[in-house]
Amino acid sequence: MAEIELTSFEECLQNLMTALEASNHEDAKEQLKDLHPGEIALLLEAIKPKDRTVIWPGIEVSIQGEVLKEVNEDVQSQLIDEMSVDALVKATENLDTDDLADIVPNLPESAVHSLLLTLDYKHREHLNKVLKYPEDSAGGLMNTDFITVRPDVTISVVIRYLRLLKEMPVDTDQVFVVDRNFTYLGSLLISTLLTEEPEQFIMSLINSDFSKPIHADTDEAEVALLFEQRNLISAPVIDENNQLVGRITIDDVVDVILDQAEHSVMSMVGLDEDEDVFAPIFQSTMRRSIWLGVNLVTAFIAVYFIGLFEATLQQKIALAILMPVVASMGGIAGTQTLIIVTRGIATGRVTTANIKSLINKEVAVSGLNGVIWSIVIALVTYYWFSDVVLSVVIGLAVIVNLVVAAFSGAFLPLLLTKLRIDPALAGGVILTTITDVIGFVAFLGLAALVI
Amino acid sequence: MAEIELTSFEECLQNLMTALEASNHEDAKEQLKDLHPGEIALLLEAIKPKDRTVIWPGIEVSIQGEVLKEVNEDVQSQLIDEMSVDALVKATENLDTDDLADIVPNLPESAVHSLLLTLDYKHREHLNKVLKYPEDSAGGLMNTDFITVRPDVTISVVIRYLRLLKEMPVDTDQVFVVDRNFTYLGSLLISTLLTEEPEQFIMSLINSDFSKPIHADTDEAEVALLFEQRNLISAPVIDENNQLVGRITIDDVVDVILDQAEHSVMSMVGLDEDEDVFAPIFQSTMRRSIWLGVNLVTAFIAVYFIGLFEATLQQKIALAILMPVVASMGGIAGTQTLIIVTRGIATGRVTTANIKSLINKEVAVSGLNGVIWSIVIALVTYYWFSDVVLSVVIGLAVIVNLVVAAFSGAFLPLLLTKLRIDPALAGGVILTTITDVIGFVAFLGLAALVI
Repeated sequence: MAEIELTSFEECLQNLMTALEASNHEDAKEQLKDLHPGEIALLLEAIKPKDRTVIWPGIEVSIQGEVLKEVNEDVQSQLIDEMSVDALVKATENLDTDDLADIVPNLPESAVHSLLLTLDYKHREHLNKVLKYPEDSAGGLMNTDFITVRPDVTISVVIRYLRLLKEMPVDTDQVFVVDRNFTYLGSLLISTLLTEEPEQFIMSLINSDFSKPIHADTDEAEVALLFEQRNLISAPVIDENNQLVGRITIDDVVDVILDQAEHSVMSMVGLDEDEDVFAPIFQSTMRRSIWLGVNLVTAFIAVYFIGLFEATLQQKIALAILMPVVASMGGIAGTQTLIIVTRGIATGRVTTANIKSLINKEVAVSGLNGVIWSIVIALVTYYWFSDVVLSVVIGLAVIVNLVVAAFSGAFLPLLLTKLRIDPALAGGVILTTITDVIGFVAFLGLAALVI
Repeated sequence: MAEIELTSFEECLQNLMTALEASNHEDAKEQLKDLHPGEIALLLEAIKPKDRTVIWPGIEVSIQGEVLKEVNEDVQSQLIDEMSVDALVKATENLDTDDLADIVPNLPESAVHSLLLTLDYKHREHLNKVLKYPEDSAGGLMNTDFITVRPDVTISVVIRYLRLLKEMPVDTDQVFVVDRNFTYLGSLLISTLLTEEPEQFIMSLINSDFSKPIHADTDEAEVALLFEQRNLISAPVIDENNQLVGRITIDDVVDVILDQAEHSVMSMVGLDEDEDVFAPIFQSTMRRSIWLGVNLVTAFIAVYFIGLFEATLQQKIALAILMPVVASMGGIAGTQTLIIVTRGIATGRVTTANIKSLINKEVAVSGLNGVIWSIVIALVTYYWFSDVVLSVVIGLAVIVNLVVAAFSGAFLPLLLTKLRIDPALAGGVILTTITDVIGFVAFLGLAALVI
């Protein structure tokens, strides 16, 4: 009996890379044998674009479709570019509707056309239904593969029906109960079919806990929150007429959760969660460049304010030496608050209802820390420069900056969310610009007044 | 038919807070009625500690256990502190073994003792089995509620057995096949029980795709990766003798994924993902203080290097004005690389097998960006200060800092991982210390040489 050894992934990657370096394509192909599409996808993401080109044609067409849906968008585009229209149609025609709907926008038009021709009427209808909704809504996330039963039949009738079907869609933990017009009535866990008496009627067994449907236009973040809170495996999706149109399964929700998690980390430094780690150098340079440019503008804004105090700096060069300390303490304290509030909003813990008491708390915490650390900073400054005035000035500047930092850090995410700007992307840059400017102005301005 | 309205959470929180402010406890209690334990947990996390004290006793004991397992550790401790031993035992005795095992370490000793006395022998055995493994291993994550069948029976025998059981554990998508000694042989999806002919033998139906078991000592991060890649709902856990000891379900894996995601964001600024957003001010101040202290040390290290160039700064005050630009560009570029590599390691895309080619790529990208932006920075500097030497010096310093930043950003996470230090926690601080120091030294050092 084979057991799972996950450290073998590293070994597998190493073997694959060795085979590729030696141009031993047979050996490279051998490494991918027996792997799950998700694992092949990870391996493809972990090698260079030119190596992907070598390996890709050797992967069976039936698996290529599943791999395409698992890799990130950058890698997906590369792989699609290398396939013929014919191969693309063969690889994708058997995918679940929701996965197909995710890939269709990235396919060349000729492939979409051929693909639609190969799909039967029912499949095409399903695909159009999913494509009707935004990709990041419940409708875009749903698949159209599910089992429905009528309320007025017995368990034994349902089981006979399932035996005729021969198989159930993946991740079927419940069957949906609908009336003649496909209006959603409720659901039934399939474990109930196995544990209850065969002569019981479906109507009497409808599960009230799992039966609440999701509207097709619900945002995917809300869908994820719902699955998390209620520990769901699948959930029915209805349209504006309460008709059952699809089913969302946990595997797709896990992908949403992972994407959100990646996004919240990556966007802090202006990166895209769909970016190919091994993208060509020129492409990566251009993408990163934008963020460096944005940061450069904010850096020049901050140093412009330093420039205003040129005369003061000239008078006391210790100010120039110490000013990064004031700015950096504000940046750290503000970013702590920013991240707490941004994550709180993302996870639903922080809303307009409780933001006020959170702002109060954050300002109090930061102010208190300002007092504590300003004393330490003042003492170190005195030890270094033996200058009482300088020590008092830097201590006061730190307190001012930490209070402003906490207020900005708590207020910014809410403001940005209201303005429909992603706080994870823009919050950090704006905040550190504020803490840099306030840090420099408070420190140098106070110094200019008293020196 | 009720539909799910997630925006109603905000409304619900608002109503709850209004009721609490008016000391209208009946109304507050009313708001929590009909909510899922996961939703009650989120509401409790979104209000102040003293308000939790008011609400908590009004929640039914049977629900309290489920809520305790959903709230973060800080809030869990608070709620546990407010319960009597008797109430704690009543609230927790019906929890799944894995959930109970998570809570037990936080319970007062007297409650654990009473709890163990109330559990029957089988339950106690199960609990001890889970407690034997580290909390963050597959063994700590598993529950001991699952269905086993023998290989030599038919589907109809299994179905008859399930009807006798009356119900299945939550999230049962498969039954496990074991021999007389509980040695794990494979698994069978319960949908197979419904779709295949009743007279078929279990042995002939064992599902090879889902049948690979997880070792109890596997790290939870690896378990999460496995569930993601293979889209699992549940997985069997075996001990060193290949005996089936438990089952991991997707709801617990989703919690692991969410915790990891929170951790990777929160730890970047020294915060704990289990921290209560509304913790008392003094407690929050002390926790945040440590990180500010660490940052202060690194800030003083950086400015110490500025201090070495006091004479040069004295000579040309423009150096003092511009030096934050050099440091900040290095910090941004380095953090981009750091996050890409740290996330790559966490998601399995980056290993020792491909890190070398990634370091090469990152240094090339950052160097190229260094060249591009050093020209822009030199031009702006020339426009501002009309000083050719200063412009050339700042341009060169930016290139040097960006190359060092990329190298450090790529190398650090690997080094820290090897040293078993969390790169998400320590990476950022160490990196920005490096980029600050290199930024200041390259800029001021070059200036000292030529001015």
